[in-house]
Amino acid sequence: MGVMGVSIQQEVSAIVGRVLESHDITHVVWVAAGGSFGGFHAANYFMERESKAIFSSTFTSNEFVLAPPAYVDEHTLAVICSMRGTKETCEAARTAKELGAATIALYVEQSDLTAVCDQKIAYESIALDESRVERVNSSIALQIAMALVNQLEGYAEYETAMAAFDVVDAVYRKAVAYARPLAHCWAEQMAGEKTIYVMGSGPAYGSAYIFSICNIEEMLQIDSPTINCCEFFHGPFEVLDKSKPVFLLMSVGRCRKADERALAFLERYGGCNVYVLDGKEIGLNDLPDSVSEYFNHILFSPILNNVYMRALSKATSKDYMTRRYMWKVEY
Amino acid sequence: MGVMGVSIQQEVSAIVGRVLESHDITHVVWVAAGGSFGGFHAANYFMERESKAIFSSTFTSNEFVLAPPAYVDEHTLAVICSMRGTKETCEAARTAKELGAATIALYVEQSDLTAVCDQKIAYESIALDESRVERVNSSIALQIAMALVNQLEGYAEYETAMAAFDVVDAVYRKAVAYARPLAHCWAEQMAGEKTIYVMGSGPAYGSAYIFSICNIEEMLQIDSPTINCCEFFHGPFEVLDKSKPVFLLMSVGRCRKADERALAFLERYGGCNVYVLDGKEIGLNDLPDSVSEYFNHILFSPILNNVYMRALSKATSKDYMTRRYMWKVEY
Repeated sequence: MGVMGVSIQQEVSAIVGRVLESHDITHVVWVAAGGSFGGFHAANYFMERESKAIFSSTFTSNEFVLAPPAYVDEHTLAVICSMRGTKETCEAARTAKELGAATIALYVEQSDLTAVCDQKIAYESIALDESRVERVNSSIALQIAMALVNQLEGYAEYETAMAAFDVVDAVYRKAVAYARPLAHCWAEQMAGEKTIYVMGSGPAYGSAYIFSICNIEEMLQIDSPTINCCEFFHGPFEVLDKSKPVFLLMSVGRCRKADERALAFLERYGGCNVYVLDGKEIGLNDLPDSVSEYFNHILFSPILNNVYMRALSKATSKDYMTRRYMWKVEY
Repeated sequence: MGVMGVSIQQEVSAIVGRVLESHDITHVVWVAAGGSFGGFHAANYFMERESKAIFSSTFTSNEFVLAPPAYVDEHTLAVICSMRGTKETCEAARTAKELGAATIALYVEQSDLTAVCDQKIAYESIALDESRVERVNSSIALQIAMALVNQLEGYAEYETAMAAFDVVDAVYRKAVAYARPLAHCWAEQMAGEKTIYVMGSGPAYGSAYIFSICNIEEMLQIDSPTINCCEFFHGPFEVLDKSKPVFLLMSVGRCRKADERALAFLERYGGCNVYVLDGKEIGLNDLPDSVSEYFNHILFSPILNNVYMRALSKATSKDYMTRRYMWKVEY
């Protein structure tokens, strides 16, 4: 419960309701950059699988500014996320607004973004231990998606999903304790590796992407291609040998079969540098089966950021808070 | 001109017309795996920028099979591509069909895919020198997208774009001759590198993706992360130093600004392993400005596959026709 006993689920639902009072929404665009962009994957994946009436798509901020989709108008809801007001994300909010879209800002610090958007929802940074999992950006985006579908078309599992958000933080805390020693071993083994592949599919793909570009590349300066498990067999698998470092996310839900197929191949042709983190290990099955698929990202991402990335930071003696370019040079 | 003097543009337009006679289309899904999946990027990029009425999205085949989008029904056109009938792509065609979608197969060899789909269009492999550029999969998909928008909503530049397809093969042949010596130098320098980043944005992103996963990873077994130029500044740029190999595609059109921003940073903080291939070098400005943005992929991809990949194959003494897993082991 947050301020005045209102849960984040209720706050989000009320804001979505307010948008729908004044807008006949047929499209939703999720716009952000980097980790915030990847954080929208769960919401977009949900929309694609559960909405028949609302067209949902993600855009990296600068592409949205430079070449916005033709359909954006007053029937579009633009959900735009930036922790501190990333320049091109603020610009994207202005673009959405100028095109007539309803706009919701997701933010940690107030900025131009919150000034421009019609509505705003504060979120808590995934990187802080004290943040609650149901209040990080990807959770709030997923709640927006679920509220939108529920209010416009009906989503039979809406109450179940909202109840799952009530318990997901506790599930996460248990998973942190479970994963820490495993992450330590993995990180010790990875120290010195120059490239770490990250694989995932469907509802977990966004977590794989963020782990690659934000955690491994940005924070630790190690090369990290992200591979969709389905795409693996149509190109990337040819690089595999027994030395190749691969981190595989095994999702729960319908796309698990794709992850299992990748796992079987990695087990046969990969070696001891293949690491598997299974959604079954980190508590996804503690959530009801009818909604757990949509929570893959919600549990994988904080575990990867706060357990595996930190362990690798320690093992490589690279302080994950240091940057050489970000916030330091012009770009 | 093909059989009986009918151009591929006319053939595609007629097939789209036939689909629209029997289906009220509101959605289009582009479904394939690997290079064929990446090959749909140009069509989807066009649809997003030019269609107000038709919702367009791409799916890798196996995700489409395992967790198809909720909206797919008789109002969806599914365009499904596989050179020889990739197993999960045939399965995806069956899924689309079962959900009631209109289906068009793009194919080189007849297979289950062509047996399942309502309509079929033969394409020519991008990898063969004798193939005509306007008849490869990405060109035909783009023609489908343009015909669809033109016939349903009107596309003012339709005739201009179709005329551009008439000359694009000649533009490509000139670009091959131009790029060969440059590719030779680049490849000599890259020989021995273990990781090559490929960067691109907007209309060229699909070409960057295919160059990474099909050309560099699959054919040459070199690690190759793909980075969107817009996303570069929100994570991946921290890996950059003067030693890092990067291949940057500079697109023509609205997203060029994003590529120029990346270039400025690469020039300042990267070193002599940064290589730039500019759409301006390979003839994109020989096409009318009103449509050239949509032809980035159409020219970049065959140049990358047939000039740069082959040069790197030669420089690394890795025969690009050899595979260790594909078509050889169970997966």
